[in-house]
Amino acid sequence: MEELLKFAPRPTGAGDMFQLLRDGQARTRADLAAITGQARSTIAARIDLLMSSGLIAPAGEASSTGGRPPVTFAFNPGARVVLAVDLGATHARLAVTDLASTVLAEVDAPLAIADGPERVLDWVAETGEKLIATTGRSTKDLVSVGVGLPGPVEHSTGHPINPPIMPAWDGADVPGLLSRHFDAAVLVDNDVNIMALGEHRSAWPEVSDMLFVKVATGIGSGIIADGALRRGAQGAAGDIGHIAVTSARDIPCRCGNLGCLEAVASGQAVANALSVGGLDAASSADVVALVRTGDLTASHAVRQAGRDIGSVLAACVSLLNPSMIVIGGILAEAGEHLIAGIREIVYQRSLPLATQHLRIVTSQTRGQAGVLGASALAIDHVLSPAAIDALIA
Amino acid sequence: MEELLKFAPRPTGAGDMFQLLRDGQARTRADLAAITGQARSTIAARIDLLMSSGLIAPAGEASSTGGRPPVTFAFNPGARVVLAVDLGATHARLAVTDLASTVLAEVDAPLAIADGPERVLDWVAETGEKLIATTGRSTKDLVSVGVGLPGPVEHSTGHPINPPIMPAWDGADVPGLLSRHFDAAVLVDNDVNIMALGEHRSAWPEVSDMLFVKVATGIGSGIIADGALRRGAQGAAGDIGHIAVTSARDIPCRCGNLGCLEAVASGQAVANALSVGGLDAASSADVVALVRTGDLTASHAVRQAGRDIGSVLAACVSLLNPSMIVIGGILAEAGEHLIAGIREIVYQRSLPLATQHLRIVTSQTRGQAGVLGASALAIDHVLSPAAIDALIA
Repeated sequence: MEELLKFAPRPTGAGDMFQLLRDGQARTRADLAAITGQARSTIAARIDLLMSSGLIAPAGEASSTGGRPPVTFAFNPGARVVLAVDLGATHARLAVTDLASTVLAEVDAPLAIADGPERVLDWVAETGEKLIATTGRSTKDLVSVGVGLPGPVEHSTGHPINPPIMPAWDGADVPGLLSRHFDAAVLVDNDVNIMALGEHRSAWPEVSDMLFVKVATGIGSGIIADGALRRGAQGAAGDIGHIAVTSARDIPCRCGNLGCLEAVASGQAVANALSVGGLDAASSADVVALVRTGDLTASHAVRQAGRDIGSVLAACVSLLNPSMIVIGGILAEAGEHLIAGIREIVYQRSLPLATQHLRIVTSQTRGQAGVLGASALAIDHVLSPAAIDALIA
Repeated sequence: MEELLKFAPRPTGAGDMFQLLRDGQARTRADLAAITGQARSTIAARIDLLMSSGLIAPAGEASSTGGRPPVTFAFNPGARVVLAVDLGATHARLAVTDLASTVLAEVDAPLAIADGPERVLDWVAETGEKLIATTGRSTKDLVSVGVGLPGPVEHSTGHPINPPIMPAWDGADVPGLLSRHFDAAVLVDNDVNIMALGEHRSAWPEVSDMLFVKVATGIGSGIIADGALRRGAQGAAGDIGHIAVTSARDIPCRCGNLGCLEAVASGQAVANALSVGGLDAASSADVVALVRTGDLTASHAVRQAGRDIGSVLAACVSLLNPSMIVIGGILAEAGEHLIAGIREIVYQRSLPLATQHLRIVTSQTRGQAGVLGASALAIDHVLSPAAIDALIA
């Protein structure tokens, strides 16, 4: 029998019915019976279960065609909270959101990821607990935690694997370490994947094929194909920073290869090149500041970085045929220079069929992309049909 | 109510139950009741419907724990047939398969795609009808037709769009034209997509992230991610033939750009280069023949083509993180030279995380990849839960 169960579609239960309500629209029992084709008595029992969990709540009365107007029900996103954690190399952003990813409280703080998983995650737990308290909720209301890390993460386990900028985290049991503090599910992913997810859900939910590109100290991307994040076989998909750039075959990269995109066009690479030229630029933020003061050398350097990124994105466009490329990360905040360079080469180097409906835009969620994506990751896990069925069982 | 129905999961019906049986395993009514959680009476009614359609058939008796042994039922792939059509620039392969993609009859023939859609599709219909007859079936048993075309196809309509080697087919209503001959659903896709699908289903169904690369007159690829073919926004995903090759910036391509992979490393490009060098090579097939006779110049040229293809595939590996790359198309038949060149550069240019579990192999389905994929495309459409429900309604 166990073998047979592999092929089983779960019987449609309360969790499935709940998915219908996640759009926030209020519906009557009769609406739900009509949609699902299930008996009124079944619907009523499931409504009761979901009501007692708090996940749905009465939402007023529907207009009546005569007689007593029927009661409507809707998703109640405030029933629980999730903690969204976006960890970078040198900073962190934490947010508490409701079950619709509405941010209830948020905090930015400097952080050294190099301090290692124990210290960093202890700090995350402590800060997260305080942040939850500021919203008037307690950790009892916390159902899940979503975490983005600045390195490759094995999707099935939530463990970082060979992360170049955080070697002390290699193989760390991030879900296990956070579970010592919270009685909640912990979901972990690469930071650029969660940014792609956050940008997609919040700004472009109707776009099915999208590439999100982060240009900051490093360069990476997250792939949305057929409406969902695609992580590849080991969770390393989107790692475009080490693709070779046609025009830069002799520039060494920290990965050991020559001419990698990241060695040529990242915020750090541009800062290094500018500082060799005598400008005061140690980081991506300095590059953005220089461009904003109108420095022409810096503007030209950012535009050239855009062209180099564009040469790699042209290949990505041929391969993936997205209808949208979203450029995020701090270097995207240097005005139009970066995106202008990207557009120039993508439109030049790609086939017309792939670019005729292609939009290349700047991130709408900016610094919030990561926490919004971490929130979405955490929510998707606990509101799946199977999870809901287990929750209310 | 219509608005509500957008969010509706179809009530689980006979079509859903049928999906369980598509693995070919025989099951009793009790097995199906246990798997689906549905009432025995519901199961019995659905079994009757599927039996009367012929899609399932009795499959003997299960072992009994006492009393009369229960009857088992299994998918009956011979209930209907599909026509699988793989059209190339200068040849065609047609196959008649059952509903499990087992080839019942097959034919290869020269064909000029340039003759245009009317003439070519009339020929396909005539040849297809004869081929069906050779299997002892008639077009009444035909439920669907799958067609692969050597150019970009808009997935939603099945119309070719701006196909470079078959301009007369631009916007042609391929499904409409074939429907004049057959009372069957017609599904159309790009030839490399159907090859990817055929290779995946037949040879590596357990691999969720795979890239199939065709190296023939042109170069293209098909992407399997999270277990399914990904076509991108306009159905143009996988079009790697016009990605720029780092080492070949000044070689003109027929697309108008410089240094495209196809202009450097396709079978035609290698043939051209060899014939300039005085060898008798007009086509990919000639190149393969030369390599097979042990010609060193030809072997070296194929290995170098492999390296150039490898430089583009290294970028694809970084972006998609597949666990397998399958090399197909006629040039893959030139022994180990092509794949050796590809492996050399992919392993050199990709990050260890992306290549540690990566296999690069030669196609197992070879010339049959296209018809097997066209068959799978056609079958998936008619055996979907909704299609089954409609069929037996």
